[in-house]
Amino acid sequence: MSQYQHIKETAYQANMQLPKLGLVLFTFGNVSAADREAGVFAIKPSGVPYDDLSPDKMVIVDFEGKTVEGNLRPSSDTQTHAVLYKHWENIGGIVHTHSTYATAWAQSQRDIPIYGTTHADHNTVDIPCAPPMADAMIQGDYEYQTGFQIMDYLKEKNMSYKEVEMVLVGNHAPFTWGKTAEKAVYNSAVLEEVARMAYITEQIRSDVPRLKDSLIKKHYERKHGPHSYYGQ
Amino acid sequence: MSQYQHIKETAYQANMQLPKLGLVLFTFGNVSAADREAGVFAIKPSGVPYDDLSPDKMVIVDFEGKTVEGNLRPSSDTQTHAVLYKHWENIGGIVHTHSTYATAWAQSQRDIPIYGTTHADHNTVDIPCAPPMADAMIQGDYEYQTGFQIMDYLKEKNMSYKEVEMVLVGNHAPFTWGKTAEKAVYNSAVLEEVARMAYITEQIRSDVPRLKDSLIKKHYERKHGPHSYYGQ
Amino acid sequence: MSQYQHIKETAYQANMQLPKLGLVLFTFGNVSAADREAGVFAIKPSGVPYDDLSPDKMVIVDFEGKTVEGNLRPSSDTQTHAVLYKHWENIGGIVHTHSTYATAWAQSQRDIPIYGTTHADHNTVDIPCAPPMADAMIQGDYEYQTGFQIMDYLKEKNMSYKEVEMVLVGNHAPFTWGKTAEKAVYNSAVLEEVARMAYITEQIRSDVPRLKDSLIKKHYERKHGPHSYYGQ
Amino acid sequence: MSQYQHIKETAYQANMQLPKLGLVLFTFGNVSAADREAGVFAIKPSGVPYDDLSPDKMVIVDFEGKTVEGNLRPSSDTQTHAVLYKHWENIGGIVHTHSTYATAWAQSQRDIPIYGTTHADHNTVDIPCAPPMADAMIQGDYEYQTGFQIMDYLKEKNMSYKEVEMVLVGNHAPFTWGKTAEKAVYNSAVLEEVARMAYITEQIRSDVPRLKDSLIKKHYERKHGPHSYYGQ
Repeated sequence: MSQYQHIKETAYQANMQLPKLGLVLFTFGNVSAADREAGVFAIKPSGVPYDDLSPDKMVIVDFEGKTVEGNLRPSSDTQTHAVLYKHWENIGGIVHTHSTYATAWAQSQRDIPIYGTTHADHNTVDIPCAPPMADAMIQGDYEYQTGFQIMDYLKEKNMSYKEVEMVLVGNHAPFTWGKTAEKAVYNSAVLEEVARMAYITEQIRSDVPRLKDSLIKKHYERKHGPHSYYGQ
Repeated sequence: MSQYQHIKETAYQANMQLPKLGLVLFTFGNVSAADREAGVFAIKPSGVPYDDLSPDKMVIVDFEGKTVEGNLRPSSDTQTHAVLYKHWENIGGIVHTHSTYATAWAQSQRDIPIYGTTHADHNTVDIPCAPPMADAMIQGDYEYQTGFQIMDYLKEKNMSYKEVEMVLVGNHAPFTWGKTAEKAVYNSAVLEEVARMAYITEQIRSDVPRLKDSLIKKHYERKHGPHSYYGQ
Repeated sequence: MSQYQHIKETAYQANMQLPKLGLVLFTFGNVSAADREAGVFAIKPSGVPYDDLSPDKMVIVDFEGKTVEGNLRPSSDTQTHAVLYKHWENIGGIVHTHSTYATAWAQSQRDIPIYGTTHADHNTVDIPCAPPMADAMIQGDYEYQTGFQIMDYLKEKNMSYKEVEMVLVGNHAPFTWGKTAEKAVYNSAVLEEVARMAYITEQIRSDVPRLKDSLIKKHYERKHGPHSYYGQ
Repeated sequence: MSQYQHIKETAYQANMQLPKLGLVLFTFGNVSAADREAGVFAIKPSGVPYDDLSPDKMVIVDFEGKTVEGNLRPSSDTQTHAVLYKHWENIGGIVHTHSTYATAWAQSQRDIPIYGTTHADHNTVDIPCAPPMADAMIQGDYEYQTGFQIMDYLKEKNMSYKEVEMVLVGNHAPFTWGKTAEKAVYNSAVLEEVARMAYITEQIRSDVPRLKDSLIKKHYERKHGPHSYYGQ
């Protein structure tokens, strides 16, 4: 049995959540789960249908993006995962999907404005949409550079990856992360729903204002921070 | 066995209807069921996934918002439920969700106009959207004040909670109620569908008029009042 | 065993198709099936959930709208069914739903324009939306008058009920019919899909033209008339 | 056993994918699978519900459109399939559906603009929408001419059927193809999702720009061509 069996199992379970939550068509998504002590992560193999997955098929990759264990080629987005794990020490899971509404916002190259408490329960800011990458980055090591595009945009916006666990990459699609792969999957589903609600909200009222600061603060702090009182 | 077993069972069954009706993502909703004679209600514990619920996990709370029985923390919205039960003597169940279309209307801070008989079968008025709460109310006892925001807006609109069993809280989401928890859940599903239809209606025709009074009256009275002839 | 067992069974089966096809929420719909020789139809009882239905619960009503057999109250829309059966000799089934997109068009009080071959496979005309009824008709025998509102609008438009098997009643919702209850249910599902497609089409292109006559004729005649070549 | 059993089985399996993928209502779609050596294809019989299909019911037709084997009438769109197989030597499967969003774009008579990488993973161009056919073509051998309308439009746009495996026929609906029937079905599902995303994208931002060339090239080449690195 592999010494990485625990993260293979975790990554497998998390990947299987994507079709159940309606976040992927065919193979358009991937989840990874990291073992920080071992300095590796388990990730979905590239282009394998969800129905054919098993824990054993997960590929083990280190934070430099080198395959450590596994017979299959890892997800084509593996380098993006590796870069984020390497630079963000507190995350244990990453998800990439092309979920419908979040991807439509990414294609529109707009941040998703914070319009309500469903959004504020998870973020205090508009969900950032990094601009499409420069041609040089695209033509170079594209997936590796995608990781930097994400990190650079968060820095530019003065956002911490510990607080904002989701981003859109302009013209592309969403990435989410979290302390665990399960939390990263949760974030993907939340992002899709927030994206859908924001879209409908703007259709209902084109001049709708952003949520006011007092409500943002209240709802975020209900769920996060020292005085949170949501959950058990 | 708990003396409150009957409302625990009722609240459990009603909570389990929310995911079946497509009204909640993860734990974004809660139902309570009251025992008026005992002066308490059973409510969903905070942040527990629907798949993990059981009648025994329901929390018993009195109308002052104090937990009477139960090992888990009650829903973070418990104080809103308590306030409404305390002041509205005829209700036996309350539901809060973040259902997609109703929440989008709440985010747009608009009442849902009455455009057709599907709406008039349940209400004679535009579904009220209470304005976002004042900062002082938000920073104070937020969930407790949410109850007052709802009651105050109904009063301002001269609406009775016995006739209008649903409301949007601006920038937040819907609350519904009824004589029973089952009826309150029914109202949540109706509200979501009416919200969806009204949204599509405005997209199809931007200058669409409200339903005329004769049709409002006819359809409402088919289902309610002394001469109703709907159902068995 | 009832002498009307065959239409009770037919009406039951047809009613059970509505939730499967996603055309109803709760009890917002009803199907009837006629026995032309006996001069009666079987219809869903009023307000009974689909899960609780059985063939025995169908109510037998004559074409004057009088209940002939059954312990339950028939659908509140029974008089509309009776009027249509009485005046349209060639129909064997009628369906009423509040399906989302068709109802939104009804609420917008617009005919559904014929934009493509999906529509032309079933109709050569815009799907008619009868105007909201006059106050006198609403305050009188409302459901009975609804039947006349439908018939009068088809006459005004020079449409035959044998060719156009679907209508919207303004501010209300769709009615469909056909030689059998099964065909009427089919028409309800087609109408909902055509309504959805027309809505999206106008969003994609606001000045979209109607389908040209040659395509309307071709597609309709593929499926209908002496030279049809669709099906077995 | 038929000498064409293998393509009957393939066509059957591929047809059954359409309802599972949500691409058809009732019988509004058909898939064919070709045997290039035998010069024939197996296609769905006309108007038969998916639940009643079996491999034996598939009809064998040659590339001139003549039925070679089978007791049922082939799909009314058979001549379109035959023309495309005859002229495009590298395709092994064809799909026609009236899937909701792709059909709405066809009804709007617009090419689907390339807005993101989900699109670029499959095509480097806007998805072509052939104009509605000329009256003479419609009144003649309509389905046969539909094949030429598709081929002519691709020629006019300088597109190769080997690279662009999907098209909209104006006012009608999509056709897709591929080396196998399975790939053609995959293309139908991808087209529907790309059509849906493009629609939502334009609603979110009306002046949204097309995807830039560097991203189109990168994403297409990740999945196609000599240096592709997607999949196993």
